[in-house]
Amino acid sequence: MATKQDIEEGLEFIPKFDDDGLIPAIAQDAKTGQVLMVAYMNRQALELTVQTGYAVYYSRSRQKLWKKGEQSGHIQKVQQILVDCDQDWLLLKVTVDAGQCHVGYQSCFYRALKKGTDKELKFIAEKVYDPHKTYKK
Amino acid sequence: MATKQDIEEGLEFIPKFDDDGLIPAIAQDAKTGQVLMVAYMNRQALELTVQTGYAVYYSRSRQKLWKKGEQSGHIQKVQQILVDCDQDWLLLKVTVDAGQCHVGYQSCFYRALKKGTDKELKFIAEKVYDPHKTYKK
Repeated sequence: MATKQDIEEGLEFIPKFDDDGLIPAIAQDAKTGQVLMVAYMNRQALELTVQTGYAVYYSRSRQKLWKKGEQSGHIQKVQQILVDCDQDWLLLKVTVDAGQCHVGYQSCFYRALKKGTDKELKFIAEKVYDPHKTYKK
Repeated sequence: MATKQDIEEGLEFIPKFDDDGLIPAIAQDAKTGQVLMVAYMNRQALELTVQTGYAVYYSRSRQKLWKKGEQSGHIQKVQQILVDCDQDWLLLKVTVDAGQCHVGYQSCFYRALKKGTDKELKFIAEKVYDPHKTYKK
């Protein structure tokens, strides 16, 4: 059993998967620093990501492995995999082309709360591709 | 009931709290783009963050609200609150001083997986403060 000291200060990679066998991973553009998306990995997805150098996630809704970009073409080449102090979050530094969000934006974080409100959002980005052309129903 | 269209393309802020009433929030340095940490908010923590302009989280281990920096002094002034396409992740752009991780580093992501391994980490940062002096046992 790893101690808190091992986990926080050690150099053994012991990612903590939750009760569903998943660990959340943030994908950040290695060049611009933009946070692109967050998704989950199970152990196999993490292994495949390490082995292939391309981000593979686990889709909770579809209950299957999902190579990012397998349908859209917007893959993520992984430059570095970081882990946080508790080893229960991953941060992937990735190289990407345009359009990482399935809604059509570069990042999934394309809206921000308007100042002075707690209910109203504003768009802070413009779409970079047409998802209706990319994802065929 | 909000539709997928409302959630993804709308301008109403309808954050999705999980079964435990929590939503994860990534804190990113507004100036440098560095991802600093990830923590959870319940509805009250989010309200207090919006109202006060400083990040307030909910500690799952201590089961209470936690104003970031209340003990360490390393507060987070919130510049912008972003939400992702599904509205189940928040991204806070924050202004901070040095030392956002309780282990002593600027960011909680101070280790990365060594190239060519799937077990071994390396440090990619140096400590910016001594946590033993900051957090009295």
